[in-house]
Amino acid sequence: MVTIIFRSRLRPEHVEQYKEVAEKIDALVRITPGLIAYKTFDAADGEHVTLAEFDTLENARVWGENVEHLEAQRLGRERFYSEYRVQVCETLRAYNFADGRRTTDVKR
Amino acid sequence: MVTIIFRSRLRPEHVEQYKEVAEKIDALVRITPGLIAYKTFDAADGEHVTLAEFDTLENARVWGENVEHLEAQRLGRERFYSEYRVQVCETLRAYNFADGRRTTDVKR
Repeated sequence: MVTIIFRSRLRPEHVEQYKEVAEKIDALVRITPGLIAYKTFDAADGEHVTLAEFDTLENARVWGENVEHLEAQRLGRERFYSEYRVQVCETLRAYNFADGRRTTDVKR
Repeated sequence: MVTIIFRSRLRPEHVEQYKEVAEKIDALVRITPGLIAYKTFDAADGEHVTLAEFDTLENARVWGENVEHLEAQRLGRERFYSEYRVQVCETLRAYNFADGRRTTDVKR
């Protein structure tokens, strides 16, 4: 399993256009082959993080090189983000806790 | 580089005790050998994610097995969390964008 950690800070300009593009990208990633989960979280200081989980590195790469996604990335650099960081990560192990029980679902 | 992704949902009870323990853990992790960064983000639906970055898997493991941290984990299961997920991830690649420029700082 591969997780893309995308941390970002938005510039104050172009917020409406950003929302439009973000909605389009959100809809697009959800029909991308191999996507397991996609969710955004916000920090108290205004930084955002989106976690995108894919089944394989190859499918994560296909998403990274999707033509509409590349165009959104370009707009992101030119207009939306003051800074960002993309980390491509391989999950070595994963543990869950729910309903009072612990389980392991990834173990390499 | 190793990133621990800790996603959680809090139960409504024991919030004061949770805050106390979380502050202690926050102070403790910051003096743990090998810690690069530690930050918590919140989703609109109430889920939280903490990203803890370590230089090596060994140092991440030492943190996972720290005695005070183990005690906090036990309290977490018994009192604080309705559910959580821990992913231990290795960073394969990382890209940054800031001041209009792209840089790469991890490439495996």
